[in-house]
Amino acid sequence: MNTFGKIFRLTSFGESHGRGIGGIIDGCPAGLDLDIDLIQKDLARRKPGQSKITTQRKEADQVEFLSGVFEGKTQGTPIAFAIWNKDQHSKDYNDLKDVYRPSHADYTYTKKYGTRDHRGGGRSSARETIARVVAGAIAKQILASRGISIQAFVSQVGEIQLKKSYTEIDLSKTDDNIVRCPDPETAEKMITRIEAAAKDRDTVGGVITGVAKGVPAGWGEPVFNKLHADLGFAMLGINAVKGFEYGSGFEGTKLSGSQHNDVFIKTSDGVRTKTNNSGGIQGGISNGEDVYFRVAFKPIATLLKEQKTVDKSNNEITINPKGRHDPCVLPRAVPIVEAMAAMVLADHFLLSKLNTI
Amino acid sequence: MNTFGKIFRLTSFGESHGRGIGGIIDGCPAGLDLDIDLIQKDLARRKPGQSKITTQRKEADQVEFLSGVFEGKTQGTPIAFAIWNKDQHSKDYNDLKDVYRPSHADYTYTKKYGTRDHRGGGRSSARETIARVVAGAIAKQILASRGISIQAFVSQVGEIQLKKSYTEIDLSKTDDNIVRCPDPETAEKMITRIEAAAKDRDTVGGVITGVAKGVPAGWGEPVFNKLHADLGFAMLGINAVKGFEYGSGFEGTKLSGSQHNDVFIKTSDGVRTKTNNSGGIQGGISNGEDVYFRVAFKPIATLLKEQKTVDKSNNEITINPKGRHDPCVLPRAVPIVEAMAAMVLADHFLLSKLNTI
Amino acid sequence: MNTFGKIFRLTSFGESHGRGIGGIIDGCPAGLDLDIDLIQKDLARRKPGQSKITTQRKEADQVEFLSGVFEGKTQGTPIAFAIWNKDQHSKDYNDLKDVYRPSHADYTYTKKYGTRDHRGGGRSSARETIARVVAGAIAKQILASRGISIQAFVSQVGEIQLKKSYTEIDLSKTDDNIVRCPDPETAEKMITRIEAAAKDRDTVGGVITGVAKGVPAGWGEPVFNKLHADLGFAMLGINAVKGFEYGSGFEGTKLSGSQHNDVFIKTSDGVRTKTNNSGGIQGGISNGEDVYFRVAFKPIATLLKEQKTVDKSNNEITINPKGRHDPCVLPRAVPIVEAMAAMVLADHFLLSKLNTI
Amino acid sequence: MNTFGKIFRLTSFGESHGRGIGGIIDGCPAGLDLDIDLIQKDLARRKPGQSKITTQRKEADQVEFLSGVFEGKTQGTPIAFAIWNKDQHSKDYNDLKDVYRPSHADYTYTKKYGTRDHRGGGRSSARETIARVVAGAIAKQILASRGISIQAFVSQVGEIQLKKSYTEIDLSKTDDNIVRCPDPETAEKMITRIEAAAKDRDTVGGVITGVAKGVPAGWGEPVFNKLHADLGFAMLGINAVKGFEYGSGFEGTKLSGSQHNDVFIKTSDGVRTKTNNSGGIQGGISNGEDVYFRVAFKPIATLLKEQKTVDKSNNEITINPKGRHDPCVLPRAVPIVEAMAAMVLADHFLLSKLNTI
Repeated sequence: MNTFGKIFRLTSFGESHGRGIGGIIDGCPAGLDLDIDLIQKDLARRKPGQSKITTQRKEADQVEFLSGVFEGKTQGTPIAFAIWNKDQHSKDYNDLKDVYRPSHADYTYTKKYGTRDHRGGGRSSARETIARVVAGAIAKQILASRGISIQAFVSQVGEIQLKKSYTEIDLSKTDDNIVRCPDPETAEKMITRIEAAAKDRDTVGGVITGVAKGVPAGWGEPVFNKLHADLGFAMLGINAVKGFEYGSGFEGTKLSGSQHNDVFIKTSDGVRTKTNNSGGIQGGISNGEDVYFRVAFKPIATLLKEQKTVDKSNNEITINPKGRHDPCVLPRAVPIVEAMAAMVLADHFLLSKLNTI
Repeated sequence: MNTFGKIFRLTSFGESHGRGIGGIIDGCPAGLDLDIDLIQKDLARRKPGQSKITTQRKEADQVEFLSGVFEGKTQGTPIAFAIWNKDQHSKDYNDLKDVYRPSHADYTYTKKYGTRDHRGGGRSSARETIARVVAGAIAKQILASRGISIQAFVSQVGEIQLKKSYTEIDLSKTDDNIVRCPDPETAEKMITRIEAAAKDRDTVGGVITGVAKGVPAGWGEPVFNKLHADLGFAMLGINAVKGFEYGSGFEGTKLSGSQHNDVFIKTSDGVRTKTNNSGGIQGGISNGEDVYFRVAFKPIATLLKEQKTVDKSNNEITINPKGRHDPCVLPRAVPIVEAMAAMVLADHFLLSKLNTI
Repeated sequence: MNTFGKIFRLTSFGESHGRGIGGIIDGCPAGLDLDIDLIQKDLARRKPGQSKITTQRKEADQVEFLSGVFEGKTQGTPIAFAIWNKDQHSKDYNDLKDVYRPSHADYTYTKKYGTRDHRGGGRSSARETIARVVAGAIAKQILASRGISIQAFVSQVGEIQLKKSYTEIDLSKTDDNIVRCPDPETAEKMITRIEAAAKDRDTVGGVITGVAKGVPAGWGEPVFNKLHADLGFAMLGINAVKGFEYGSGFEGTKLSGSQHNDVFIKTSDGVRTKTNNSGGIQGGISNGEDVYFRVAFKPIATLLKEQKTVDKSNNEITINPKGRHDPCVLPRAVPIVEAMAAMVLADHFLLSKLNTI
Repeated sequence: MNTFGKIFRLTSFGESHGRGIGGIIDGCPAGLDLDIDLIQKDLARRKPGQSKITTQRKEADQVEFLSGVFEGKTQGTPIAFAIWNKDQHSKDYNDLKDVYRPSHADYTYTKKYGTRDHRGGGRSSARETIARVVAGAIAKQILASRGISIQAFVSQVGEIQLKKSYTEIDLSKTDDNIVRCPDPETAEKMITRIEAAAKDRDTVGGVITGVAKGVPAGWGEPVFNKLHADLGFAMLGINAVKGFEYGSGFEGTKLSGSQHNDVFIKTSDGVRTKTNNSGGIQGGISNGEDVYFRVAFKPIATLLKEQKTVDKSNNEITINPKGRHDPCVLPRAVPIVEAMAAMVLADHFLLSKLNTI
């Protein structure tokens, strides 16, 4: 249940305050020249303390490869890796040992397992997503070898929305600002919004948009493992995610079929569609157009303000957490969204080798 | 890739105009007294020709069990079943043999497999969902034995939205009208909207809401197979679905954490939450509150009006489909949403047996 | 748990006296021209009543394809099929309803599931292997398209052993006699031995040898899914099988390393080995030499003579089964061994597409 | 492909001369009090340098747990662990970089992956089995909590065979001598035989017998995942294994059904069998009797004497390996056989929770 993927499979391990976070990637083909810098770069985009609008915890988040890579090349054998924990303040959590923090996993984990590593959220901590960023950064390199790129960006923070379509924006500017919204004007407003939340010791949610360019027609499986179903599953597995839509999404439900259908046209490139309400996927299979989707993140649950709750013995109590926390998870979640999308697409690239005799 | 589920697994088969649609359920525990009438009842809710706002095709959609059930009881062995095709008009599709219908899977299947059964959409036809309704109806019976019920209903058709929360409505009235919206007034408007689409030889999309009551705390897996990730995956695998959200969903992204958090309270029943923005799921694991979610359906692609497109040889052509088609898929999709949710929950019920030593 | 294979996957269904036996093959690539006659031919090699040394039950064992094949070609979609039961004498088994027949699955099924379809052994009947023969016959066609052939033959019946190595025999003569031993002289003795057992209302076991020619170097997985581990798993899943060995097998354990090692030599064909104690597999991966192995079958448990046993209520009783049974399962098991080997090899052929980037 | 098990799943990683060997165990239930000493004890039974008849390499083989265990208890979350490599002499292998050693995996890995970590056999090294011993030692603790024990022992070395049945021997004496044969007299002969092989710079094979006591009736799956098929798959995945048989095995093929059948009898304990040719498994499911089986190991391929072979460029060459190697793998393989059996049985224990509603 801690494995993601069908052919390119990540099994992740680790708790927030344990020895470290890591994983094993099984099914990565042999012969890929790994660029470790690119992996480390995505880790830096995810890591805490990277800007004034993220938590100020300092973590090096340096990946160490334990197997499967030899002389810089993948060997076809399992790629194990770890990011050792360093800056853990486990004692900060002693008071929370028996507390069920509101909208956290404390209560549900206890009900499920009868036991729980309470330090820093244990296994339920978003620190686990480090493993996904590493595996995703490798998947990106597989895709890049096929001319496919993935780019995510923050398109909403609280009520602040990026109004333009991704097709009207230069996505290469995403990392030019600390909130990772490629439109500088909107980015500014988003940063102000996050700073207001932080000042208020509160948090704020938002939306990340993801775009994959260069996906060839024919990827995805017809029935259950539709390309968008696998993408949705991947995104909904990220901490704090509450919704997923692709192409026209929830808005498209209001259209008529005649407005919504993407007419096929003849081009010098072959068959294309005039519009892309389909989000690049028809019948669950890519059609060669851009694949794009939106991911909803709730405001994270850890507030640095007083809240009422109950504890393990069903006593009503008041908590007032201290520590270093993110007022808004979205800027740091951009590489996670990209990583999950990359793993899904790399998986379908590999699966597509099996389509025909 | 045609198997759904981890423990309770459905492998489905069949094409729209082939011998039939069916599947094998593997992993259904032994000793369940199967109520075949309940299964047939859900098939009747899905079947075409059931009302004036659905396609007028007549299909009996009678399930035949081929194995795994003996003297009315599941045996623990694979439950195979089939619904034989009967009212297929395969010749209606001869003209479409080489055509790529807009927003259909014709083009993408051809790109994937190099070959395609064009009759009635072949494997990409929503007729395949019959298999899911059968398996889901069995999953419902497993859940019922644990006091869990699942109810879906149409909460939006085109721009017509049900304004009330599900908690304010009597969900048992869902099947009292042909559109399957439990609020009679809204139902009326929805029916009118669908009839307008039909008259216009067009189609219309919408939203289905699903609610599971009685799910105990502790179901779901912590990382990738979060309960809502599995639900989302299930829903996104249904034909025409474009989005999924649970609990506060996309709207919740606009809230502050202090508004969004569900405060735990002490009750005579044990720990409960004051609000349910979490949709009954925290950290991917059920917390004992209602699990609820929304599923976006695009307007279906088959229009009975002229549309431009291209064919297999990249010729620009005009099509004008005939036949019997649904102007709106939502009323018939209600049992499919329930079926998929039931399979996910039955799976997590079984998985929950493995949590502790 | 009723699915076999990783990429090319058979999920089988059916009980001995139910509606029929069948399965779904998922993961068969699109574009294979299916030769149904070849499938039916293997079914004929497995079917009862084919000669004087098999059971005299008459079953047509005609396969019907329900999906996944269109205009003679595989579609990449699930291939469902069934062989409908016809000549079942369910009443023959009424007396055995509560009886635990010695060395049968009656007792263990009851302990596992709490319920049991007692008619003809239910799911534990070797009639289930029909599904494997169909899937295996398709796998053989995939392999044939790559120049790979699989041939099994009876190499031992009771104490009668074929003394020659398979390399000294013309395997194409296997089906020239009813016992399926390619050496006519040994075949004669085996037939006599089986007739003696039948006359004595008893049964006799034996060994089947399998050989795959043309397997290229590089198939198999390094650690758990070694090519021979997958073959062994496949064979041990056949009813009545008690052992599996490949290459030098149990005999090889008596040799020194210097005697056992297969020296590599340089040939015009590239690297070959001088001897083949490795059975064509080194480190779990094929090396281009013949893959060969031996499968031990116990004497089947159904005797037409009096035996003491107990029943469900722990009463000591005596049974004296009637009916039509095989004195020796081996001649009919030859196509089953081939089928399982073919599925394993087809799976590894498909997996081998994923080795390198 | 580097994952073993269905519910209790080990994914292993590591190469002989890489950073270390380890794995992730997913699916281990929460709440098990882990006895680390017992794990370390099995590692000591596997480790090199433990006696005069094993390789003289010194490796500490100390396990470090990286996740999933908190305050001595399993958490239900993935248990990651590593054994860091220390005493690697990678330079010993420089000369072998391009050489295909006879009956090793050098050639087949190169054909499969196009690349290979040649140092110490890389991934194909039996050093990988450390991961299995750790996971198996945890599985043993799960089983012990259910009163089940597993004991393996060396029953043959070269032509020296233990003549007695395991039922006539005190298995608790297995570890009393360095060859791990519970019969002191036979053990003596085996040690002499191994010393002779070592002196001759050669190697010798043999057989390990495994016995599981206390397995309740009802474990195993009816068709493909028969309990013995899973055991056979597990054993055949161990380096150097060439064959597997259970119960009466290959010898049983020579018996008549009337000799072979295990008659059920009535006892104060309930239903038992008079004999146990079935090896505790009938129809693939345990019947409550002892489960026992035999595993054939070839003489290992690394000889410290001159051998002819070819290299990557198809040149004929002569090699004369140096280094520290085992003349006989069997004494060190005893805990590996136990570990694999324990994982299979723990898996079926967990699966058995899913049999009935």
